[in-house]
Amino acid sequence: MDDLISRRLHVDDLLLQALREDIPTEDVTTNAVMQESQRARVTLIAKQTGVIAGLDVFFRVFFLLDETAEMEAKVKDGDRINEGDVLAEIRANGRALLSGERTALNLLQRMSGIATHTRRLVDLLSGTGIMLLDTRKTTPLLRILEKYAVKVGGGANHRFGLSDGILLKDNHIAAAGGVGEAVARARAYAPFVRKIEVEVETLTMVEEALAATADIIMLDNMDDETMKKAVALIAGRAKVECSGNVTEERISRLSEIGVDYISCGALTHSSPILDMTLKHLVLL
Amino acid sequence: MDDLISRRLHVDDLLLQALREDIPTEDVTTNAVMQESQRARVTLIAKQTGVIAGLDVFFRVFFLLDETAEMEAKVKDGDRINEGDVLAEIRANGRALLSGERTALNLLQRMSGIATHTRRLVDLLSGTGIMLLDTRKTTPLLRILEKYAVKVGGGANHRFGLSDGILLKDNHIAAAGGVGEAVARARAYAPFVRKIEVEVETLTMVEEALAATADIIMLDNMDDETMKKAVALIAGRAKVECSGNVTEERISRLSEIGVDYISCGALTHSSPILDMTLKHLVLL
Amino acid sequence: MDDLISRRLHVDDLLLQALREDIPTEDVTTNAVMQESQRARVTLIAKQTGVIAGLDVFFRVFFLLDETAEMEAKVKDGDRINEGDVLAEIRANGRALLSGERTALNLLQRMSGIATHTRRLVDLLSGTGIMLLDTRKTTPLLRILEKYAVKVGGGANHRFGLSDGILLKDNHIAAAGGVGEAVARARAYAPFVRKIEVEVETLTMVEEALAATADIIMLDNMDDETMKKAVALIAGRAKVECSGNVTEERISRLSEIGVDYISCGALTHSSPILDMTLKHLVLL
Amino acid sequence: MDDLISRRLHVDDLLLQALREDIPTEDVTTNAVMQESQRARVTLIAKQTGVIAGLDVFFRVFFLLDETAEMEAKVKDGDRINEGDVLAEIRANGRALLSGERTALNLLQRMSGIATHTRRLVDLLSGTGIMLLDTRKTTPLLRILEKYAVKVGGGANHRFGLSDGILLKDNHIAAAGGVGEAVARARAYAPFVRKIEVEVETLTMVEEALAATADIIMLDNMDDETMKKAVALIAGRAKVECSGNVTEERISRLSEIGVDYISCGALTHSSPILDMTLKHLVLL
Amino acid sequence: MDDLISRRLHVDDLLLQALREDIPTEDVTTNAVMQESQRARVTLIAKQTGVIAGLDVFFRVFFLLDETAEMEAKVKDGDRINEGDVLAEIRANGRALLSGERTALNLLQRMSGIATHTRRLVDLLSGTGIMLLDTRKTTPLLRILEKYAVKVGGGANHRFGLSDGILLKDNHIAAAGGVGEAVARARAYAPFVRKIEVEVETLTMVEEALAATADIIMLDNMDDETMKKAVALIAGRAKVECSGNVTEERISRLSEIGVDYISCGALTHSSPILDMTLKHLVLL
Amino acid sequence: MDDLISRRLHVDDLLLQALREDIPTEDVTTNAVMQESQRARVTLIAKQTGVIAGLDVFFRVFFLLDETAEMEAKVKDGDRINEGDVLAEIRANGRALLSGERTALNLLQRMSGIATHTRRLVDLLSGTGIMLLDTRKTTPLLRILEKYAVKVGGGANHRFGLSDGILLKDNHIAAAGGVGEAVARARAYAPFVRKIEVEVETLTMVEEALAATADIIMLDNMDDETMKKAVALIAGRAKVECSGNVTEERISRLSEIGVDYISCGALTHSSPILDMTLKHLVLL
Repeated sequence: MDDLISRRLHVDDLLLQALREDIPTEDVTTNAVMQESQRARVTLIAKQTGVIAGLDVFFRVFFLLDETAEMEAKVKDGDRINEGDVLAEIRANGRALLSGERTALNLLQRMSGIATHTRRLVDLLSGTGIMLLDTRKTTPLLRILEKYAVKVGGGANHRFGLSDGILLKDNHIAAAGGVGEAVARARAYAPFVRKIEVEVETLTMVEEALAATADIIMLDNMDDETMKKAVALIAGRAKVECSGNVTEERISRLSEIGVDYISCGALTHSSPILDMTLKHLVLL
Repeated sequence: MDDLISRRLHVDDLLLQALREDIPTEDVTTNAVMQESQRARVTLIAKQTGVIAGLDVFFRVFFLLDETAEMEAKVKDGDRINEGDVLAEIRANGRALLSGERTALNLLQRMSGIATHTRRLVDLLSGTGIMLLDTRKTTPLLRILEKYAVKVGGGANHRFGLSDGILLKDNHIAAAGGVGEAVARARAYAPFVRKIEVEVETLTMVEEALAATADIIMLDNMDDETMKKAVALIAGRAKVECSGNVTEERISRLSEIGVDYISCGALTHSSPILDMTLKHLVLL
Repeated sequence: MDDLISRRLHVDDLLLQALREDIPTEDVTTNAVMQESQRARVTLIAKQTGVIAGLDVFFRVFFLLDETAEMEAKVKDGDRINEGDVLAEIRANGRALLSGERTALNLLQRMSGIATHTRRLVDLLSGTGIMLLDTRKTTPLLRILEKYAVKVGGGANHRFGLSDGILLKDNHIAAAGGVGEAVARARAYAPFVRKIEVEVETLTMVEEALAATADIIMLDNMDDETMKKAVALIAGRAKVECSGNVTEERISRLSEIGVDYISCGALTHSSPILDMTLKHLVLL
Repeated sequence: MDDLISRRLHVDDLLLQALREDIPTEDVTTNAVMQESQRARVTLIAKQTGVIAGLDVFFRVFFLLDETAEMEAKVKDGDRINEGDVLAEIRANGRALLSGERTALNLLQRMSGIATHTRRLVDLLSGTGIMLLDTRKTTPLLRILEKYAVKVGGGANHRFGLSDGILLKDNHIAAAGGVGEAVARARAYAPFVRKIEVEVETLTMVEEALAATADIIMLDNMDDETMKKAVALIAGRAKVECSGNVTEERISRLSEIGVDYISCGALTHSSPILDMTLKHLVLL
Repeated sequence: MDDLISRRLHVDDLLLQALREDIPTEDVTTNAVMQESQRARVTLIAKQTGVIAGLDVFFRVFFLLDETAEMEAKVKDGDRINEGDVLAEIRANGRALLSGERTALNLLQRMSGIATHTRRLVDLLSGTGIMLLDTRKTTPLLRILEKYAVKVGGGANHRFGLSDGILLKDNHIAAAGGVGEAVARARAYAPFVRKIEVEVETLTMVEEALAATADIIMLDNMDDETMKKAVALIAGRAKVECSGNVTEERISRLSEIGVDYISCGALTHSSPILDMTLKHLVLL
Repeated sequence: MDDLISRRLHVDDLLLQALREDIPTEDVTTNAVMQESQRARVTLIAKQTGVIAGLDVFFRVFFLLDETAEMEAKVKDGDRINEGDVLAEIRANGRALLSGERTALNLLQRMSGIATHTRRLVDLLSGTGIMLLDTRKTTPLLRILEKYAVKVGGGANHRFGLSDGILLKDNHIAAAGGVGEAVARARAYAPFVRKIEVEVETLTMVEEALAATADIIMLDNMDDETMKKAVALIAGRAKVECSGNVTEERISRLSEIGVDYISCGALTHSSPILDMTLKHLVLL
């Protein structure tokens, strides 16, 4: 998040809300051991190997508690880090360091876990021209941070949410009564700057989507054979996204089928964290 | 969350905030395909086997969008569910069903993933009398939901945050200048209803914590041998918690060492989701 | 706004905020004259001829103050109304009627003013296939309501804001160093579901935008001759929007030039209100 | 708004809310073209002739996004400006300039439109001693800014809202059962620092208001003849305000009738904007 | 607070905020003892003699936690109550009763304490025609409730705050350079519906205030002799308020001096509570 | 409040909310008399003798309105002050001084009143080893400030609220069906870091609480004889708190009975303010 506008308008509030969740009244432990304000230093150290993402968010937690906080980072978002690496030193009021530690780490570890997971899959797609996409299966309230982490890992963002993209899924098609009718209604209703994407599960639905001139067709949970036929049928008349069960093992097969995009919910809903720790508090 | 007070004071706001994250202006797709309000029904189906948690939160998402929403649940929080099980039917305004689907599922899947993970570890501790605890390594802003999911899975909650428990960790002890001084300051400062817990890494620190009459001693990242010696040294004079690297493999060994509590950050920071889906929209 | 999802997530809060602006503590006048709660009825009457928009928002103001409020509307959004027409009867707690009157009317009159203005221009474009678009030149904080009013008047919505559409304007092009570079950066950065629009002022820029394969080209402040040349140059390779000085007089000329869209900021920044009044309070 | 207290307590929040309306997640276009933060300069130029109001609010939008923003203004609120005038230069982080431009201009143009309209009517009253007043017919949520703009244009403010003034209108009088009773209840109920104003439509009501010793009598929608009689009847025993259909043409007639105040809703509900533009972005 | 508009716009939010202060996550005790929701009944009993105020606010706390809550009140705001009186029965979800008890009582006791104190002073003024006024020396954030309690006790409200009344005090007069100049500036600046009040400490200042035609003159901390001279000097040309050291003993002397209003900060800043208790929980 | 973390996360928002309560739109008086911003100085002077608490909060009010505000304090929280003492000088923008004065004083006087009251009771307990505790009978929304003031006066804090401590009172015991059952449920449910406290009214209940191994027993409203028997019965097996009718007269008797803690609601619900004033505004 080196985007100062979004940070100002959205991220700072999330961070303060997270701090208030952890500290509804006071940090009793810190207030007990550190009754005078005193500047201190702590060191951020990697406990696992992976891709780091979220250093700016991590630091911002301390900065919001103490505007004199400073971070000297040895790495930057997107770098690979190894277990034991010293990643950064943070200097601030000692209370801000102690009170912000867990919230800052919770965010950094989660974002870095997503970036690490994304990078692993993106590397498997290297050279294929296929883009790896995230989904809306993000952690509620943290989407802006998680979609950023996907980018840091080399992935690309799908729409942000329900307001900025059209994606007609099974239940929408059921509500409209068919693919053609659903696309027609979307084209009539949506702001003209929107592309229209349809999720299909069968070749018949692919044909209906093509007839309706959908801009993007998402092949959902198809087996490899059907997917190949779908791609042949589409023949460049729409962009092709595939989703569902995107394991590392399957990705190499998908890359030969000719889809343009692979979307993967697990990037944001099931990545384990990348472990890091804040150590060696020294009073200055 | 069948706690109506917390739901009213805290959870509803989180759910509305999550919905606003996904729908900053309007749900374009749904508004396009469903221009008249119409009641509909969808079915919640399990795609994996595990323990379900969060049905009340899941339903509440729809209820907040449409006060006439109704859910007929076939299971309740804490039940084991199997792939393919029909879990619930939800009836509401069709737009509420379509617009709330992803937010509701994102929460239910995450909470159920935590409950499933917790249950697996708790089962390994069955019969030992050891309690499995969560930590503050939760997803920022969702702690209240995640700690509930841990309970549903059979775990117990550690303190909620920095305001309602004393836990003196390495950096606090460094700031105070030693274990004894840290405990003394905590006892002098904290509300008298607080128990005092100290995190220790060596047997020397165990002795210091005992001398300071800490109520709870947390053995952090100790190997099994050291941990045994620590438990012997403590000899019932304080409750014993152990943390760090709590894998399934290690848990059986820990259960023989004689600790009272095992805390496990991974329950909330690295559980994969439990997959479920909302299918079969029918207009009523 | 018969969109219950947006109303729940966004509009109700705006209405309450507007009521709090008008009533920071209490409605002194109403509390003075009406010390007992008593149900009453008032009548909404047109004082000008035009197109009505915002009846749901209007009524919602009273409903938020008194959940037993009821409205019997004689017209619906989009209808033409004439001076003197009885438009609706509202029944509610008499205090809610008195305290909500001005806020409710301020919104209804403003939205109806926009719809009336939009309808007048849309009628001039009748039969041409050209769509009339709104802009981001809306009243701050009321965009969701004003864009709805444009639709009620027969116009179409451009992007909602800066997050859901790409529009490269003069200052962006200056920052990027040229049209081609700006489009390339946008294509690389933006979520793949976005169309890319470029604002151009000269034929040279039109050529650059075409070379960069922009999806939409906006002809900004061009004279009619240049615009004709631009349309000929584009020759269907991109959608064409024109903006700037869209007076009633000019619209007929524009409709012969062959643009696809005409955008008009004045719809939302300079429409006078459509006057209405709430009369004939009767205690029930 | 050179009132730092109100700006801090009220206006900054409105501006941030307006920015969040326009940028619910990120400014995609700006983030695409300007990936490194870079200081830049833009120029504010008048496109119409009128009275400027809101420079402080305009600048504050940029300042809230970038605390190092600076504005060098060539004019000040209340000055007459002419088409083509260079009004100010703003220097700030380039992203803040691009992302804040529309919100800042939307506010400045609207406020200046109101000031321009107000000034035109105030000039017609020049030398008469009559004050031109605004009303509560303001844009919901922007009242504090619009009432300021009226002052900049030479008008005066009526009450801010329902909490800080007593104005007994037709529906209040109906609820109370008559002018005398309404005034009596208001005097008994309201804080003693309030003046009491009554809106009347007939000479009979004027007499009733005088009998009840109202402090201010508002003549609503009276024709000129009736208004003259009303003024004669009142004979200085109360202040006299007139409202309704205050066109430029009518104002000169009103000024001879002897009222103290003329209130005009159109100042805030129907003023067209005063057009300005931000041009010539230069990276520094 | 039987003012549904203010309750909806202001009071409910205060009550929820107060509940969140007391319950930042969950009511641990109640959740422990009452794991199933069950309807219950409690009884409100007076432990002291005085005037009750705030029953509606008291009940609203429970209603906000449980919309099925019901109160059967034996008394109404303004009634004298005696130690031991049963005041009301409340029925609701048992958890709502237990979790809301303290917040509801804290408010009711405080408001009743103010009403009791006010009534005692008002009774001393009985028959004199002098009104007892509150001040802005209220508990921050509870002003709307405390000013209501003053009314219930028979007092009257001064201005609500700094936005709805003009009161020129010593520091304002110092800033303006004198009483005359301060009043002149106020008359020029303030909305014309405001009365102008000046606080004076000497007879010279009284003369200046009269010369400036202040509407109200507040005699601040004057001794009785000076005050008599001031009242004689004013001779009906302005309303007269006196403030400072309004003890019960002094009030009888003040009532003979001829002031119109006596204002008393202690009503809201130093009234002890009126003790009440919620007893006899019965599960239904 | 020299706790920068709580101030940042909680107190600043309370102060801004309090300022907005007093100034819902603008400070009309100050804006009238001080139309140009000008730095000024005021002096804080004691009008009563007592213990000061809240200087940081007091100053923060001005700082939030003007970041250049400075305070030179002659005393610090906890100091005894005497009538007439000059306590501090504050320099800031003159408008910030005038507009913030009442809010700042309202808080400082209230907090100092609590500290003064607390100190008087604590002094009576001097040498007994008994700690004086506050309760949850605080002013709604100001608990964080009031509990701090109790500490400044030499008292200690009981739990902050319902989420961070277990206290089983009469109604909880009724809901559970008895003391033993209530304690058992609490121990099973609550986070393991909680101590469990039971409120008892009879010796039988004391025995039940002991049998249930409660950590703390609160003797509620017992007469001195019963209390002595209770203390003898408990015999060190639990901490003993007593509450109810803690007058100055009774405190000396209580101190001989052998309780560990005395809790006193009146500290926060019925302390009169400690009077101070801001005088001598000088423009700099």
